[in-house]
Amino acid sequence: MASIEATKAVEGDGVPVARAVLGLDIGGTKIAAGVVASDGSVQGFVSAPTEADRGPDDGVERLFELGRRAVAESGVAWEAVEAVGIGCGGPLDSANGILIAPLHLHGWRDVRVTELATAAYGRPAVLDNDAVAACAGEHRYGAGRGARNMVYLTISTGVGGGVVIDGALHRGRSGNGGELGHVTVDWHGRRCRGCGRRGCLEAYCSGTSIAERAQEAGMHGATAADVAQAARAGNTVAARLWDETCEALASGITSIVNLFEPEIVVLGGGVVRTGEQLLAPVRERVSEQAIGDPVQVVEAELGDAVGVVGAAAVAYERLPAR
Amino acid sequence: MASIEATKAVEGDGVPVARAVLGLDIGGTKIAAGVVASDGSVQGFVSAPTEADRGPDDGVERLFELGRRAVAESGVAWEAVEAVGIGCGGPLDSANGILIAPLHLHGWRDVRVTELATAAYGRPAVLDNDAVAACAGEHRYGAGRGARNMVYLTISTGVGGGVVIDGALHRGRSGNGGELGHVTVDWHGRRCRGCGRRGCLEAYCSGTSIAERAQEAGMHGATAADVAQAARAGNTVAARLWDETCEALASGITSIVNLFEPEIVVLGGGVVRTGEQLLAPVRERVSEQAIGDPVQVVEAELGDAVGVVGAAAVAYERLPAR
Repeated sequence: MASIEATKAVEGDGVPVARAVLGLDIGGTKIAAGVVASDGSVQGFVSAPTEADRGPDDGVERLFELGRRAVAESGVAWEAVEAVGIGCGGPLDSANGILIAPLHLHGWRDVRVTELATAAYGRPAVLDNDAVAACAGEHRYGAGRGARNMVYLTISTGVGGGVVIDGALHRGRSGNGGELGHVTVDWHGRRCRGCGRRGCLEAYCSGTSIAERAQEAGMHGATAADVAQAARAGNTVAARLWDETCEALASGITSIVNLFEPEIVVLGGGVVRTGEQLLAPVRERVSEQAIGDPVQVVEAELGDAVGVVGAAAVAYERLPAR
Repeated sequence: MASIEATKAVEGDGVPVARAVLGLDIGGTKIAAGVVASDGSVQGFVSAPTEADRGPDDGVERLFELGRRAVAESGVAWEAVEAVGIGCGGPLDSANGILIAPLHLHGWRDVRVTELATAAYGRPAVLDNDAVAACAGEHRYGAGRGARNMVYLTISTGVGGGVVIDGALHRGRSGNGGELGHVTVDWHGRRCRGCGRRGCLEAYCSGTSIAERAQEAGMHGATAADVAQAARAGNTVAARLWDETCEALASGITSIVNLFEPEIVVLGGGVVRTGEQLLAPVRERVSEQAIGDPVQVVEAELGDAVGVVGAAAVAYERLPAR
């Protein structure tokens, strides 16, 4: 395979890149790859459709080919790429590098993805939950730089996240991090599609749940972005829905803050692209309600590359320091 | 002071006590002291009214005198007592040994209690939040022995607790542990007396809240124990109240379990003395609702001495290993 051969070391912006890691992100819709330098900068970012229904053998091969393309397009020499970091939704076995049965990759079972990556690339590979990896990325390179205690939440199709405790990523017993979308906001409330329980944070604030609640309120076919826009335009139904979304999010974040006492809460994911329309009311309510020292509530910084940068961040975390 | 002088080494049950620590517990109603061996056994357990309104100088002096009495009554030689552990409600500064302004000790401010203890006893002293200390005690000597990840909840006048992550006590940014009583169960629900927010776990499950809800339901003057007893006797109002209590507790515990993924949840405090009447329905609902691997829900084992044993456990944790 030509693309795995060493290309001439032409480093981005002419600045010597001390270290480089290949980051791979396996999403439900897209797979992505990029070469991440030890300062967090990304080169050769590429993505492609996941097409999970073509099965894991085909999917993993296309992922690795995408990784080769990323290295080729990055201009970073293969010799400089020390390791491979892979992020994917759970359940997975992070310690042994196995995709157990990712909810968003129907039919993929017990895929030994780090072993396959090491065989393909001849380099050590690590696997982590994508929400934990995104948390690592935002902590190492993004909005949470320097925080001792941090909570990262992604408000997207679902709600998930990760936690940094005393400077270290918390992976929990399962290695999938905590289920941050599944704190209760209302024990008698809406049924949660994710876990079947009533009244989870995710049942109110995920993009899917906002669209469902809009549908029920008569805004047929409206997405979360449509609801946000209609609320800005003065539509009272949309404004009420948006306010309820902010209130539920603030309630869930307050519970999480009361338990983990972070200095900072970083919010990422598609729903957060509404910016201060979401952040300002949530920030205000969390600051009114949470116990203890004030906590910052800020927007994530890494954008679309968060999956790739996060996967690389966990690889850097586990590589021996140099 | 005669009682601080060394007494002859007569050790309990004739078994040599390898190490001993003096545990002191400063509650809102009672202060307590006891000598805790490195196997968790307590000798010379004594308690007295707190009488916090007599002020911190008087209170601390009586606490230290109680400690001397405990050592004298324990039969353990003073030479064998290596350190002093102190537990108290927050807010406090655990790292520097200062009672900042404990909520249950009105008017006590900035009391440098470990410095005073070291001056009084000539030994190193440590201070920790009483819920964190109780968690340490149950983890080291009680129902959570050997757990890597554990949550301890005390359901008493209020609701609090502590968390063990990867074998180590989690103290959080403030050193007061997380506010486990202040996870939301219903964001539109009852106002919480503890924090002012709506729908906290504590607003439904503390002894105080159960009594308040009983009052509102027409059971005038009923305590939590009265409600439990009436529910057992078939009173339908009491049965409904008790069921709601169990449901709220299960909901709060499920949120906490989803975030921390412990192997075991240990429940202590007065309300838990109702035993399986509380534990069985809570256990069943948590097992139905929580995501991930099964979690045990069990009763605490240390009983009334938990404050003293917990305070000693944090002292052992911080003493150099021997």
